[in-house]
Amino acid sequence: MTEFNPFFSDLRERIDAVDSLVSVGLDADPDRIPEHLRGKDLPRWAFNRRIIDATHEYAACYKPNAAFYEDADGWRSLRETVAYAHGKGVPVLLDAKRGDVGNTAREYAELLEYVDAITVNPYLGRDSLDPFLSREEKGVFVLCRTSNPGGADLQGLELESGEPLYRRVAALADRWNEAGNVGLVVGATAPAELEELREAVPDLPFLVPGVGAQGGDAEAAATFGPADGVGLVNSSRGIIFAGEDAGERFHKAAGQAAKRLRDRLNRHRE
Amino acid sequence: MTEFNPFFSDLRERIDAVDSLVSVGLDADPDRIPEHLRGKDLPRWAFNRRIIDATHEYAACYKPNAAFYEDADGWRSLRETVAYAHGKGVPVLLDAKRGDVGNTAREYAELLEYVDAITVNPYLGRDSLDPFLSREEKGVFVLCRTSNPGGADLQGLELESGEPLYRRVAALADRWNEAGNVGLVVGATAPAELEELREAVPDLPFLVPGVGAQGGDAEAAATFGPADGVGLVNSSRGIIFAGEDAGERFHKAAGQAAKRLRDRLNRHRE
Repeated sequence: MTEFNPFFSDLRERIDAVDSLVSVGLDADPDRIPEHLRGKDLPRWAFNRRIIDATHEYAACYKPNAAFYEDADGWRSLRETVAYAHGKGVPVLLDAKRGDVGNTAREYAELLEYVDAITVNPYLGRDSLDPFLSREEKGVFVLCRTSNPGGADLQGLELESGEPLYRRVAALADRWNEAGNVGLVVGATAPAELEELREAVPDLPFLVPGVGAQGGDAEAAATFGPADGVGLVNSSRGIIFAGEDAGERFHKAAGQAAKRLRDRLNRHRE
Repeated sequence: MTEFNPFFSDLRERIDAVDSLVSVGLDADPDRIPEHLRGKDLPRWAFNRRIIDATHEYAACYKPNAAFYEDADGWRSLRETVAYAHGKGVPVLLDAKRGDVGNTAREYAELLEYVDAITVNPYLGRDSLDPFLSREEKGVFVLCRTSNPGGADLQGLELESGEPLYRRVAALADRWNEAGNVGLVVGATAPAELEELREAVPDLPFLVPGVGAQGGDAEAAATFGPADGVGLVNSSRGIIFAGEDAGERFHKAAGQAAKRLRDRLNRHRE
């Protein structure tokens, strides 16, 4: 039986309550926000609020990507969004992919004051992640095998030991998991590697991106993503922009897309 | 003769004009900003403005680390800081260490609208960096061998080919350098690797962090950092907090520290 920390325990409760592995990616691209919201004070917040209203019954978590909030209004929108999601009882995972050294890493780890979990980049090594890992009650998802075409450029390099780099990263993350607060990011576009990694590190929950617009394998994601029932399968654009042509009813389509993904994943859950 | 793009050509002019390789790291840690500035509207901007006034004669560039500006007031402070540095004729390199996939990477690359160059993380591979690399007039510094203790955890792993991962990253970055806009981040705390990398990729300018508070080797940084005379040696805390005990005269000490580092590096430049 896997020992989970408070974040993963809460996530398990949430997954059970809504019977869903779905992570809704809040990539509120300003260029794709519906016309009628663009005049609002904080259009990204106005957009996210409607998406949350329509999807929260199917959401195990929300995953805003920090890239879409990196300006003054963006950070205000993000703070409002996180508070609103929490009000609905849904945890928030900030997809920040941060990794930096010493005092700077500590500064980035302050982001965990506002959210429940974060994604981090392992290229700078253990000490760059310590300020995150030492937040024992939060979740820390280490990038391992990503879902993009170039994911293999570094991650797939064969080490002298015979294993690919991403396998070593998984083993390191497993070693760094002293507090039961570590997960991995493993893309759904590489289903064979998902299965291989699930076997290699049975205790680490996976966040599996790439099942929506990127066309990844939902069956593999639902089967191999969870560790002891706890894991997340993310879709961003496939949910939040499902109603792009629906005008003021855009959020209805988002709610339907979230429900569809939940049901599709549930057909493959153990 | 190395072919440089507009960013590196401008940087060369700046290096020649001030006879300096010094990059001043604007890590405006809110907890270390002098008391008398904390009541200001934007304390980080007030701090940076004074640091820029005192150091710009010795600065080849300014390097704010994004970690210290990740909130609403922070982004406003950063924008003001960049504009002010530009007003003094000094280029700005945003130390963001970003790396993400597809549409998200494009969003991060928007940061290059405001600054002249950026640092990026290679773990997600070529396509994650394309939105940066395609800004042919800007500078893109790829993390290669970092100055922190855990830098070797991944970067030093031996590949099946016999080379360490950081060597392969350098070779990949060299291949990605189609526009003459690529540099590498190579820490001063690993002087032997600095020399080895300078030989391996003679055309790529290095940004060398770690000579200040981290105690790296200034001689190796000045000798092996530049490619055809163009390179940067960064100190952050060692300059900007040099006057931490000097009260309202803190910036004078910062100016002296920047001048000292310039002179020390110049003793070892070719």
